[in-house]
Amino acid sequence: MSESVKPGPLEGVKILDLTSMISGPIATMMLADQGADVIKVEPLTGDLVRYLGPRRGKLTSSFISANRSKRSLAINLKTETGIKVLKQLVKSADVFVQNFRPGAIERMGLSEAVVRGIKADIVYVSISGFGETGPYANKRVYDPVIQALSGLAAIQSDRESGRPRMVRTIIPDKTTAVTAAQAITAALFSRERTGEGQHVKLAMLDTMVAYLWPEGMAGFTFVGGEVSSARAQLAQDLIFETTNGYITAGAVSDSEWEGMCKAFDREEWLQDDRFATAAGRVAHAEIRLSMAAEVIRDHSSEYWLERLDAEGVPCAPVLSRKEVLEHEQILGNEILQEFEDPVAGTYRQPRPAAIFSETPARLRSHAPQLGENSIAVLREAEFEEEQIAALKGAGVIGTHSH
Amino acid sequence: MSESVKPGPLEGVKILDLTSMISGPIATMMLADQGADVIKVEPLTGDLVRYLGPRRGKLTSSFISANRSKRSLAINLKTETGIKVLKQLVKSADVFVQNFRPGAIERMGLSEAVVRGIKADIVYVSISGFGETGPYANKRVYDPVIQALSGLAAIQSDRESGRPRMVRTIIPDKTTAVTAAQAITAALFSRERTGEGQHVKLAMLDTMVAYLWPEGMAGFTFVGGEVSSARAQLAQDLIFETTNGYITAGAVSDSEWEGMCKAFDREEWLQDDRFATAAGRVAHAEIRLSMAAEVIRDHSSEYWLERLDAEGVPCAPVLSRKEVLEHEQILGNEILQEFEDPVAGTYRQPRPAAIFSETPARLRSHAPQLGENSIAVLREAEFEEEQIAALKGAGVIGTHSH
Repeated sequence: MSESVKPGPLEGVKILDLTSMISGPIATMMLADQGADVIKVEPLTGDLVRYLGPRRGKLTSSFISANRSKRSLAINLKTETGIKVLKQLVKSADVFVQNFRPGAIERMGLSEAVVRGIKADIVYVSISGFGETGPYANKRVYDPVIQALSGLAAIQSDRESGRPRMVRTIIPDKTTAVTAAQAITAALFSRERTGEGQHVKLAMLDTMVAYLWPEGMAGFTFVGGEVSSARAQLAQDLIFETTNGYITAGAVSDSEWEGMCKAFDREEWLQDDRFATAAGRVAHAEIRLSMAAEVIRDHSSEYWLERLDAEGVPCAPVLSRKEVLEHEQILGNEILQEFEDPVAGTYRQPRPAAIFSETPARLRSHAPQLGENSIAVLREAEFEEEQIAALKGAGVIGTHSH
Repeated sequence: MSESVKPGPLEGVKILDLTSMISGPIATMMLADQGADVIKVEPLTGDLVRYLGPRRGKLTSSFISANRSKRSLAINLKTETGIKVLKQLVKSADVFVQNFRPGAIERMGLSEAVVRGIKADIVYVSISGFGETGPYANKRVYDPVIQALSGLAAIQSDRESGRPRMVRTIIPDKTTAVTAAQAITAALFSRERTGEGQHVKLAMLDTMVAYLWPEGMAGFTFVGGEVSSARAQLAQDLIFETTNGYITAGAVSDSEWEGMCKAFDREEWLQDDRFATAAGRVAHAEIRLSMAAEVIRDHSSEYWLERLDAEGVPCAPVLSRKEVLEHEQILGNEILQEFEDPVAGTYRQPRPAAIFSETPARLRSHAPQLGENSIAVLREAEFEEEQIAALKGAGVIGTHSH
């Protein structure tokens, strides 16, 4: 990864990032890709994510994918000296982010009041699982707990048995990350105009209720006019098995339905009153989908995608994870890029999704080894070489060199 | 909804929003809640979402949940006069957002070059399904198509049959919305510092590949070191049936595992070598989860949650959608709020998830009726009353008053 040619949109923003695991780190990674200088503040043992998932050369895939483009400062914040050093770094920071359980950051001596006392206009960010009060406030949070409480597991329920089901990717963690990145950016924009920093708080539970609401909870929008969730649920499982795989295809408008019947060679379905209108097709979705499934199972995915495409019916193959990497649209968009890492070898990362014409977001640097940038970060904060050596000798900071 | 007491973080930002359906509108709604003046530019027939989902008093739940806090301008952009009027509005806009299919906005005569010719520093935003080139660029996009192509349906595959499965809420649409909101905010921040606007492009497909990557595709991070997706998949279905419902509970650390065995009255499991380490518990997850399921099915949800809680094991009830509305943590956080709407009566909305201490994000106004603000918007752009009457008479703009 070469040095940035053009600065990103958040160039010049310095972020002290005390978060660990997923929701905080992915939020600050998005900002780092956009040019912010994110200093990942880690305990001497490192963020736990350093030890989760497939690994190579001391780096795990999950750590890389949540911490690229950052610098790592390893520091023991359980010591008074460690706290003192961190306070020195606060002086030049624009953003301070933490996702400890409520109360912990205050006990560490780094409350908003303390931090703002050092840097008056800092954006101070607290990410939590459940918010700061209430019966769950002090519980440990895992992604499935939020899936269970937010209604996501209910939305994913098995249609036949009604048994709730988890979504098998950590939606609450990652959605909280993107939402936090937006909120931090909005607070930075506001500070640019008003000169004032503020405290931004975000709970995973709140994030998921807001995120699921628009259609996931559509039946509960009208007070006194609640409708059953099944009726209010727009999403359907539009997956059909072919002779050699799976495809998705959907017909919402009249012209799409006509196209689908033609592609299926079942133009007689156009005479079926049940399916004559969009509303009718929704009301009779179950039988319609099973009729479609019966037709589709007789030919290959390629056969059907070509016919459906020709008739203007939205459709796509259902790709396996491996196929995602090789699909022509994904290759064409250059979403996945390969990087040479000094310790982990060549790895793949998706580029930041949003493309900025003038201030490109991009992978700025490899994911750091634990404490890889401790010395550089302290030098920038005007610590003397002897002080740095003393801090290292006393075990307050950790350093790493390959 | 009263007038805002304090301005939001994006106060003073004016957004011309030509998007429809979900991904664009939810992005701009987040910005509207944060204080941006979002003018929803709709055809005279209105955004299609006005007709989807449960409705009351001419407003559908999905429209409300994607368009609150905005103003509506109904205008026929298929007429030369309509385009001329819109260009007049561009003069005072900070952001121009559109999610037509690639090429359409240029054919309408509102390309980036044209718009930037009117307002040099505008942030011009294009949201698409698949990007601007490649075999899928001009296809219609539905959420399930992106689920199929991005690997989400594969990640959600049935463990036993291997059949891919859709997630039953529109993750690609909504994640694109939050990601777009962040990118727009970053471009506004950058403009504040550099004085320059730019073009921000975002494809749903790119967004989902980037979003799923960190753990969903963890097995494909190391080039040449790919591991099977099952092994790389962290998420498990931690849902257990009790005598009266479902709970989730998970034990990752040693102390949580010890707590779980105690809560279960199965301390002998602590002697089982298979489960002695975190790695062992992952390797033997299937048998361990089925052993847990067998124990849990004998008592009520309340019984187990109390015991697991007492032993420090992360756990929660799996709530139905209706139960979400009534849960004590959700009530305590005041996530759901009720609003009086002039036409739809009382409705529920989640408040914006991120809490800003100084510049609160909040529902600024009710979701607009089609063309409700056409006249006010044109007056602000210094159209004379006679001009407005003429535009209305000629069917170029639509107005609505209740």
